[in-house]
This record gives sequence, structure tokens and C-alpha cells, in this order.
Amino acid sequence: MPERKYGEVPGYPEGSEFKNRRELAVAGVHKPLQAGISGGKDGADSIVVSGGYPDDEDHGDEIIYTGQGGRDPNTGRQIADQQLTLGNLGLVRSELDRRPVRVIRGAGGDPAYSPARGLRYDGLYWVTEHWHDIGRDGFRIWRFRLAKQMATSPGPTQTLATHVAGPAPRTSYKGNRLVRDPSVSARVKKLHNFTCQVCGTQLLTAGGPYAEGAHIRGLGRPHDGPDHESNVLCLCPNDHFRFDAGAIYVDDTGMVWDALTYVPVGPLRTAKGHEVDPEHLRYHRNHFAAAGPSSLPRNGQQSTADAEL
Amino acid sequence: MPERKYGEVPGYPEGSEFKNRRELAVAGVHKPLQAGISGGKDGADSIVVSGGYPDDEDHGDEIIYTGQGGRDPNTGRQIADQQLTLGNLGLVRSELDRRPVRVIRGAGGDPAYSPARGLRYDGLYWVTEHWHDIGRDGFRIWRFRLAKQMATSPGPTQTLATHVAGPAPRTSYKGNRLVRDPSVSARVKKLHNFTCQVCGTQLLTAGGPYAEGAHIRGLGRPHDGPDHESNVLCLCPNDHFRFDAGAIYVDDTGMVWDALTYVPVGPLRTAKGHEVDPEHLRYHRNHFAAAGPSSLPRNGQQSTADAEL
Repeated sequence: MPERKYGEVPGYPEGSEFKNRRELAVAGVHKPLQAGISGGKDGADSIVVSGGYPDDEDHGDEIIYTGQGGRDPNTGRQIADQQLTLGNLGLVRSELDRRPVRVIRGAGGDPAYSPARGLRYDGLYWVTEHWHDIGRDGFRIWRFRLAKQMATSPGPTQTLATHVAGPAPRTSYKGNRLVRDPSVSARVKKLHNFTCQVCGTQLLTAGGPYAEGAHIRGLGRPHDGPDHESNVLCLCPNDHFRFDAGAIYVDDTGMVWDALTYVPVGPLRTAKGHEVDPEHLRYHRNHFAAAGPSSLPRNGQQSTADAEL
Repeated sequence: MPERKYGEVPGYPEGSEFKNRRELAVAGVHKPLQAGISGGKDGADSIVVSGGYPDDEDHGDEIIYTGQGGRDPNTGRQIADQQLTLGNLGLVRSELDRRPVRVIRGAGGDPAYSPARGLRYDGLYWVTEHWHDIGRDGFRIWRFRLAKQMATSPGPTQTLATHVAGPAPRTSYKGNRLVRDPSVSARVKKLHNFTCQVCGTQLLTAGGPYAEGAHIRGLGRPHDGPDHESNVLCLCPNDHFRFDAGAIYVDDTGMVWDALTYVPVGPLRTAKGHEVDPEHLRYHRNHFAAAGPSSLPRNGQQSTADAEL
């Protein structure tokens, strides 16, 4: 298998139009003739958004995209749980590796953003989040948030990481943060003295200690968690990443579990004055945890994610 | 001391002009009458950029700002090392806590961006990086990179963290990344099998392992490090943070040191096919490490950063 090509395909800038999937495949913009995701365990390089999944949401520069699999090819209805394999695994891998994904919209997608006919390459997106849910037909689906990467342009610098700057070619991206009340995270971190509630690490710098305020149930659509101390944990970056990726979760007794090995990590550390709402932890388990009791499917079989491991 | 007020001061939107420092102080936009930084160990809420420091660089939406202290009040020349205390410490704290900093430009600053007379409030910035250097007068200075936070506007969502989205008030920020060759980081991470070169952690998710490619010498101005494997480490998020913050460094023998305690952490893990350039590690020690042998000042006394601890 030749190496997957990430990023723009030379000769096909954003806005390029294609009559059909064959043209798209020949151009190398999206190679599979049928699958919506071009990807595998090494990553995903392109997706087609064409309204095939009722759970898809197209907001233009942001897309909430449904994974592949588990559908009846005739009716298009979901008849089984989706697995974290093939293209679905590819999109997670591209999120982990921060690889750009080409987005192609087809007629049949949201009319506000889709071409009237054929297919159109709509630029590069980042996968910024993935989680699972029960779709309209009652089976597990994987969902991916994709956010548009804006066109290349020279400009000033800002990143969350520290080491980025300078007079060099750049690619800007559309960056937005919800207006959070910074005092919410600040209070939680202070109550825990910047000590991770999972592992007890306090990262020290010459400027003082550092920790992150992690929202348990994400703010904004579709999670709509509150920006309140009961929805925030004080975590080190490693455990923040693991929590968001569903690699750890917290059960109703306050025990932290490794979602991949079923090994208990230890009790979630508490601090006087900081009450975490168990409902938010339950939401996180149900939608983010890779495995564990709450992600067992409704029929009681081994969970989808678990079966992958 | 009343609590420090971060963010915009009601009644004084971006572009507000002030005749002099007294007006600015009365408005509460920048309270100190003389100091360029309004800050302390709890954080910094505002700075004045008015060309007082020859090492300042104003690029508009990005500012490289010199810390305070060590200057002769008569000549304005640096006569001692700057310390990581007071306003300097405040700017680091605001970086760690992701607090916005009000930037006020005064006449006397870079004519391309500064008002012809008086002072002007120019909006909110994030502190995205800090490091130390030897200034033009031969003494240690602290430098801070500030990146402009753009005006509030509704819009789509993208963050490096996963949990951010939704139809809610947002504040966008000007986001840019240098165009890096993603295969550089990808190769380094693969060679190390996504295992942190400092602590040996391999963060596992259902989608596979995760690590970060950390540039040793930052890309772009003023560090101008190369986007090459010899300038990249494979690190977990915690050690990436600690490395960028100067809390750990690597000596010429390949030993990792805790810069705050002088305790060796262990040898930097190596992988066949990945050669790290010691020159880049030296640059990191000289400009980022909070303490350690290489940050001793030229006269051999205990280092500035060390004296703080």
C-alpha cells in the first residue's frame, strides 16, 4: 500500500469540482469509490460529506461527522454498532497526529454548504474531538468534530504551545474559544493547589505550579456542559489528554479506571469546597470512555471499543 | 490588596486613548504610574509598551516584550540581571493560567503601531512564551511573547483541546502555525514508538498511542530553530510542558535534569535513527532552563533564576 498523502493535492485547490466519485478518485483527492472515509490505522486523509448519515451536522467551518460501518447497504439504516476500526480509527489517528483531513462535500449534504450537483473539495480540516453516541437507529455510532483550517497566509503567531513564532511560512486556522469564566477553572485549580486529581502530580516551574482545568462534559454543542466548578477537574496535561480521549474515566464511587485495561488507577482526589457532579462524570463515561462498564452496548455484549483492544 | 481585574475594563474598549499615565491609572486600565507591568505573583493584568526597552519588538499582533528591573533609572541602561519576580513573575503566571493581558501602547514605541501622542489601549493579548536572554547591555533579561486575542465574534470552533464547541458566546483568537513538515515530528514519534524520551510514558488510547513532537529550539523568530529531526524530541504532554517552561533541561552528556531541584531525572531516552543535535539542547538550556549550570551568569555567580528558588 503506498503511503497515504495528507494535505492538499497539487492541482486541486479548494473549490475544485468533480462530476462523480470516479473523477474524485482519479484525481487522488478521495481515493475510495464508495467509502466516506479514506483511512486506516495509519490515519485518514479525506472524507466525503454527502448527507448519507442522518446524525451528521454541517455547520460550515465545523462539521460533526458520523463514522462508517454498521449500515444496511440497501436501506442505509444502522443495523449494528459501529466499530473503532478502518476509517473511524483513521480519523482518531489523524486527530492524535494532528494530520489535516481533506473534506469533500457532495450534493445531498446540507444545502446551506453543499454543491447543487457533483462533488466539491472544500479544504483542509482538523479532527478536534471524537466520541460515541447512540444514533437515531439505536446503535452505537462514532462521531468526529472537524474544524476548518484556514487558507495559508502570512500573519502573526499564537499557539497554545509555546515554541511557535517567526517570519516563516505559516498556516492559520480559525481559532475560537468559548467565552469561559476563567475564574471557574482558576478556583478549581487553586482548591487543588494545582495538583492533578488523577495522579497527584503538581507540575512545578520557576513561575509556580501549573495544572489544567478540564471540563468533564464539554461546553457547547452537542455536549452542552455547564461552565461550573461541578463540571471541571484539575488535571495534569497527561491526564487531561487521557480523560478527553476516553482512556480513563471515573465511576459513581469516585474511582478512576483505566478504560483500556480495566485496572483501577485510584480514587479521584478531592478538595474541600469542590464538588464534582456525578451526572457529568456519567456523561463522560457514556460518550468518551473507550471501554468500561458504561460503554457496554445495550444488549450486554462486550463493548465495541473493548472488542478493538 | 484588591483582587486583580483581568480582561477588558468596562467603558474602555480597544482603541480608547489616554493623555497620560495618570488617566490610564484612574481608569483602571493600567494601575501603576511608572511600572510597565501591572502584576505580581498572582498574575499580570496589563502592560505598557512604550519603547523603553531596546530589546522590545513590536510586530503588531505579536509583541516580544522585555521584563522589568535591573535598569538605571537615570540612563535607562541595564545595570543588573532581571529577576523572575514582581511583574515578570506575573507575566509567567498569566501564561500558566491563560489569563488575558491588556496591552497599552504609548508614544515612543514602534511608530508603525504606536500612537503619535499619549497612550492607547490596544486590546487583550495572551502570553504564549517566556525565556531569558542576555540583553544589549550584557545583563540577563526576561522576554515574553504576547499574541493578540481577536475581538469577540460568533463563529466556528477549533482548539487544540478537544472539549470546545457549540452555539455560545465565543472569543476568537488569531491562530497561526508555522508550516511545519508534519513528517518530521511523525518520524521522530514513530522511532520512539510514541514513548516519552524523558519519563518513558506511552499514553495509550483506543485509537493508539499518543506523544508530541517538541521542538527543542523554537521555530521562527527569534529562536529560528530548524524543522529537522535533530531539533525534535518525542515527549508526553507533561514533559513537553516542563521542557518548554524550562523546568527540565538536558545536559551535554544526555542527562535530563530537574532545573528547579538540580536532581537528575534520568538519561534522555534514545532511539536508533534519531540523533539530537547537542547545540539545540544547549540553546534550550541557555534560554529556557530555569536554573542549572548553563544559566549561571557570565560572572560565575549563582544564576538569576536559581536565586529565585
